[in-house]
Amino acid sequence: MTLFDRWLLPDGVEELLPPQAWAAETLRRRLLDVYRNWGYELITPPLIEYLESLLTGTGNDLDLQTFKVTDQLTGRLMGVRADITPQAARIDARCWKSDAVNRFCYADSVLHALPENQITGRSPLQIGCELFGSESELADVEVIRLMVETVRTAKIGVPHLNLSHVGIYQGLLAQANVSHAVERLLIDALQRKSVPDLERLTETHIADTELAKMLHALPTLVGNASILEQAQSLLHNAGASVLEAIESLSSIAEQLSEFFPDVVMSFDLCELRGYNYHTGLVFAVFVPGYGKAVAKGGRYDAVGREFGRARSATGFSADLKTLVTRTELESRRSGIFAPLDSCKDLLETIGKLRETEKIVQALSSDDDPVGLGCDRKLVKQNGQWLVENL
Amino acid sequence: MTLFDRWLLPDGVEELLPPQAWAAETLRRRLLDVYRNWGYELITPPLIEYLESLLTGTGNDLDLQTFKVTDQLTGRLMGVRADITPQAARIDARCWKSDAVNRFCYADSVLHALPENQITGRSPLQIGCELFGSESELADVEVIRLMVETVRTAKIGVPHLNLSHVGIYQGLLAQANVSHAVERLLIDALQRKSVPDLERLTETHIADTELAKMLHALPTLVGNASILEQAQSLLHNAGASVLEAIESLSSIAEQLSEFFPDVVMSFDLCELRGYNYHTGLVFAVFVPGYGKAVAKGGRYDAVGREFGRARSATGFSADLKTLVTRTELESRRSGIFAPLDSCKDLLETIGKLRETEKIVQALSSDDDPVGLGCDRKLVKQNGQWLVENL
Repeated sequence: MTLFDRWLLPDGVEELLPPQAWAAETLRRRLLDVYRNWGYELITPPLIEYLESLLTGTGNDLDLQTFKVTDQLTGRLMGVRADITPQAARIDARCWKSDAVNRFCYADSVLHALPENQITGRSPLQIGCELFGSESELADVEVIRLMVETVRTAKIGVPHLNLSHVGIYQGLLAQANVSHAVERLLIDALQRKSVPDLERLTETHIADTELAKMLHALPTLVGNASILEQAQSLLHNAGASVLEAIESLSSIAEQLSEFFPDVVMSFDLCELRGYNYHTGLVFAVFVPGYGKAVAKGGRYDAVGREFGRARSATGFSADLKTLVTRTELESRRSGIFAPLDSCKDLLETIGKLRETEKIVQALSSDDDPVGLGCDRKLVKQNGQWLVENL
Repeated sequence: MTLFDRWLLPDGVEELLPPQAWAAETLRRRLLDVYRNWGYELITPPLIEYLESLLTGTGNDLDLQTFKVTDQLTGRLMGVRADITPQAARIDARCWKSDAVNRFCYADSVLHALPENQITGRSPLQIGCELFGSESELADVEVIRLMVETVRTAKIGVPHLNLSHVGIYQGLLAQANVSHAVERLLIDALQRKSVPDLERLTETHIADTELAKMLHALPTLVGNASILEQAQSLLHNAGASVLEAIESLSSIAEQLSEFFPDVVMSFDLCELRGYNYHTGLVFAVFVPGYGKAVAKGGRYDAVGREFGRARSATGFSADLKTLVTRTELESRRSGIFAPLDSCKDLLETIGKLRETEKIVQALSSDDDPVGLGCDRKLVKQNGQWLVENL
């Protein structure tokens, strides 16, 4: 074991040091204040839960992402949460009996056993909002507005909104009536937008040529609002659920453009990546210069079912670490240095100033005011302690 | 798997729900603001690290407390931190080359594989301060003042301060010159303050009767400042390191009584519980009605050595969850309900009010303002949106 090894953090595991940690704290406070003012109540679910609570209804991807440990008290398997959204669904199902709408927000650490991709870490600080008990499009609009507000509050560049609806490809796949294994292959090909692979798969497994054609069309349905009209005409025989999904996508996009006339909106009808348990509309925000979504979310109406209450649900989340590492830091020093002296009038002066300002008192006569981040100091003049610039 | 099982949280693993989660957030902010104004810079060490980084120099107890997982990227063992203090020591040793004093604070989740005792949880929210690079008593006094300030800020009752010094029993045990196994037995007997067990052990293993007598005296040295004088006379032959420890304890207690003339101070010269890696002065705060310390800390000058820099270090920490569950909650509803309506003037009014207040807009005409935590509502009168009491 060399010193260097002891210092090494695991790949994708970052720490925040000064001044970045304080910048993250400031952003965290601003965002939680915004969420509170939109009526979202803070919850702090536990870092660790029994695996059957943690992974209920959330699919295989989250399972692979979750670190497992054995509970020494019971011998049961526990998981360190990889996502807070399913915990919010459990709290909604468990703790509130009423059918009223619940709005929750959170800001907490999660752990991923493997990084989601090359640029995300394994120890995100997940911050987000979840809205339970409303199937209205207004709920999605509210959550998307908050997601955009989140990125704006972080001041990390012009937000670009991407919308999709998992009901579209799911509706088509349901009609295909193929085995689960073939469905996985089709989803994989759609996700990679590989038309040749799709063609090969549909040729072998799907007899209905019209359906096959519609599946081939999906990867091309990427772009601005005009692709929604294209989708309506290309997929007009795809059945009610698919057409309703396109309809809902159009309607939500229209409502959003009222709120955000200046935000670029794009659509990608086979966007599937990273949506583990979503059942309807999905949305993501991008900013220039960052290759992945900085915030994303969607509808996940089914997650609560396993907890005894299949409530409508929509929400978004972001990684506070990603947001803050893209924020410009204020590097200005600000603080008052107090000399090594325990006389009563100095201690009183420090006590008063400390109510609103940073005051660092020396512990030895060598202490360096600049090294301690101060730009001013306390000096005694005519029996009075005064603040002077360094 | 029954529904009930899915809802069950592991023993000692708590979640914070509204309104308690917000109370914890408020207290967190107040405390971090206090620490900042005392010159303590926020750090956010990672939740997970390689085991050899996490457990370096911290002793066996912390090892048993730490959940271990395998890093799928490297096959190496990682631990979910059970304590943030050693991480702060690593950051101090690693990231700052200068010999200047470093002051760090933090507020983050930790996990304990087993509960420390019957009333503490396994998922504390550890909040605390660490001061590196000063061996001065002033550093201990500063940290203890902040610890008392922490408890006062939480408003959970009159703080009672307990001081001790691990150098006293360690100095005596060093002279005893016994095997490691016997030393463990002696420490165990001291910890339980069992004089009969101590007598049995010293009779068999310690020839020096004067030393044995001093060890028997230790469990009786519990009480107010007067026991320090008793200690000085009872242990006057115990060697320089023991006498220096008593001296230092007296001097620090005297300085503290200047700051806290009203805080009750007690001393317990064989206080050993829960101090895993401490090397000198140790301190704890108690409040009425809670059987364990609500905050504690001490000197741990050795921890940084394994990271290449044995820096003087002192600090304290507390569990924010313990503090907040003992705080009285403000239960007053406060918020403005806005009706279901997307007309532009309403949305503008909401936008303005939201900068400072909680406004919840209805998603359906059934939404109940009281259920959403509101005490006022927006109503249109003569073409203007006004706030009215419910």
